[in-house]
Amino acid sequence: MIVPVSLPGRVYPIHIAAGALQELPDLPGAALPGEIAVFCNQSVGALYGDDLAKNLENRGQKVTRFTLGDGEKYKSLETASRAYDVLASAKFSRRGAVWALGGGVTGDLAGFVAATWMRGVSLVQVPTTLLAMVDSSVGGKVGVNHASAKNLIGAFWQPCAVICDPNCLKTLPPREIGAGLAEVIKYGVIADAEFFRYLEANLGAALSLDGEVLARIIARCCEIKAEVVGDDERESDSIGRRAILNYGHSVGHALEAISQYGKLLHGEAIAIGMTLEARWIKHSGAQNITEVDDLLQRQTDLFQRAGLPTELPQDLDFQKFWEAMLLDKKNQGDEKVSFIMPTRIGEVVKVNFRKDELIRILASGL
Amino acid sequence: MIVPVSLPGRVYPIHIAAGALQELPDLPGAALPGEIAVFCNQSVGALYGDDLAKNLENRGQKVTRFTLGDGEKYKSLETASRAYDVLASAKFSRRGAVWALGGGVTGDLAGFVAATWMRGVSLVQVPTTLLAMVDSSVGGKVGVNHASAKNLIGAFWQPCAVICDPNCLKTLPPREIGAGLAEVIKYGVIADAEFFRYLEANLGAALSLDGEVLARIIARCCEIKAEVVGDDERESDSIGRRAILNYGHSVGHALEAISQYGKLLHGEAIAIGMTLEARWIKHSGAQNITEVDDLLQRQTDLFQRAGLPTELPQDLDFQKFWEAMLLDKKNQGDEKVSFIMPTRIGEVVKVNFRKDELIRILASGL
Repeated sequence: MIVPVSLPGRVYPIHIAAGALQELPDLPGAALPGEIAVFCNQSVGALYGDDLAKNLENRGQKVTRFTLGDGEKYKSLETASRAYDVLASAKFSRRGAVWALGGGVTGDLAGFVAATWMRGVSLVQVPTTLLAMVDSSVGGKVGVNHASAKNLIGAFWQPCAVICDPNCLKTLPPREIGAGLAEVIKYGVIADAEFFRYLEANLGAALSLDGEVLARIIARCCEIKAEVVGDDERESDSIGRRAILNYGHSVGHALEAISQYGKLLHGEAIAIGMTLEARWIKHSGAQNITEVDDLLQRQTDLFQRAGLPTELPQDLDFQKFWEAMLLDKKNQGDEKVSFIMPTRIGEVVKVNFRKDELIRILASGL
Repeated sequence: MIVPVSLPGRVYPIHIAAGALQELPDLPGAALPGEIAVFCNQSVGALYGDDLAKNLENRGQKVTRFTLGDGEKYKSLETASRAYDVLASAKFSRRGAVWALGGGVTGDLAGFVAATWMRGVSLVQVPTTLLAMVDSSVGGKVGVNHASAKNLIGAFWQPCAVICDPNCLKTLPPREIGAGLAEVIKYGVIADAEFFRYLEANLGAALSLDGEVLARIIARCCEIKAEVVGDDERESDSIGRRAILNYGHSVGHALEAISQYGKLLHGEAIAIGMTLEARWIKHSGAQNITEVDDLLQRQTDLFQRAGLPTELPQDLDFQKFWEAMLLDKKNQGDEKVSFIMPTRIGEVVKVNFRKDELIRILASGL
């Protein structure tokens, strides 16, 4: 299955197929230019990196390896700096291609290095987690964290190809599959009621890693994301269409921030965020919300089937949570905060809350 | 005087006027968004930075200062990292603008930070050296050096405006004025015989810092560069039109590399490079070179009037020089090396040399 992603002046393919990592699909010339740097962490390296490197060498590519640590804390300028050293030692030229094999951390870090090595070289994204397949491999956001906040240092840098092999998900811990499904369910809620129904009918197959169901899910998520970001590649308009992807993320990011990116996985935080933000719309004065209760019920059902949490942690520090959420929204003025909230499956609106009103809602335990 | 630079989808202005730094021209909104980070080194800060910061504050801008060390060695990832820390402490948002006040080092470093802070913020280039005014403020190349080579880490990031104030050149050492004139003379040789004649008639006025002559020179150089890079913004075609800007730079870069960027100024190395590369064309088999002797004579006259060297240093290590030149050309195949060489004032061609032939020429002392 191929999802084409259109950019101004060019198109790149997302290849989605079980076994794609072994067999490698037909790729654009820029993906196989003769010299390739494969970026991955140690565990992904042992599972897939060594085979991929051999595979590429058999196709006549000169392969340089870069191994990063496993975890968000290695998505740093220090790791990028070490990668530049490795590329310099290998005399890696501006005609080379960087292949990012792994989850979001590897994709973001390798993408940032590709964006900045000799003012930019080709990038191939090979996501091996469900979250990376449905989210970070479309959109072109690459970057590293700063001590003070995530993703402060980065660029927009588009891949020349993406390869998603659902077989890779077989080695992923089940909890990570569930976390990835939170973003999958989000796509249904924000943009496609029919896809949501498909998930209701096929979540079990997805959880048991049915290759065909996973491929179809991944493809539809990439299509939706590509459509949404297509008109707003650089996110120049922060209240533009791209913002609908942030459903659940205001609460989710705040939860992640106060738990220091530790306890909750990203998808778990998003599941809680989607639940709360859907509940809040009933207190917003928004119109046409008669289907919200139905939506909440069905969304919660899917989350629970995927093993995802839907309530705030018991030991939550409300003051810290509140401050983290305001920080995330610091550029939206003083009086009000805005959220993307669903009115029914497949449809979201932007809703403004007065801060004091939101505090009241939070305090009442909703 | 305003030189407009056309990019796909937008145009930015280069403002060239004596006093522009005090009076500030009409600027696009993105240049004055409410929060500005002024980057400069300590000496430029004392001469112009403090006044500029006050000036911007008087216009209602919140100003953050970043001071870098003076010299090529501070164009590093370490300095960029320190700049990110300062921006983070100031809570500098993605709507802010970075103003780069200084020479090429400051412009490249600040431009790289602007390109990568929150995936890119607005950039205003305020070059204070002649070289930066005529060269690095057009073209969008930004970046930092890696220990192993110059500019290995970087991006293409265009300014939203450039402000050139020839008054700034009054505090520049005369040797730096001369070095800047090497690039100015290059523009005449590669693209504009009439401009070359203007330089022959007005070099004295330029050297005595006549504001009007300097403004006219800077404007014409920016026009030529903007024209040349216009069709090839990302230098995707390394043998394309943009390559003509490299006249003199094959030899020049090699001289700079083996002197560790110390002894010769960039413009001085380029003057030697232009002289040698113009001489070599006579041994290349190229046609239509009857005017080369005239060109060489007039070019050398201008260089000498500007106080620029035209011969290789006495103590040159030929072996090192040769290796450095090949390294600079490493992507052009094994047998031959290519150069941009002038056939007459205003016209250049690309010439291929066999390596052994070039060694013979070098050894014969040409």
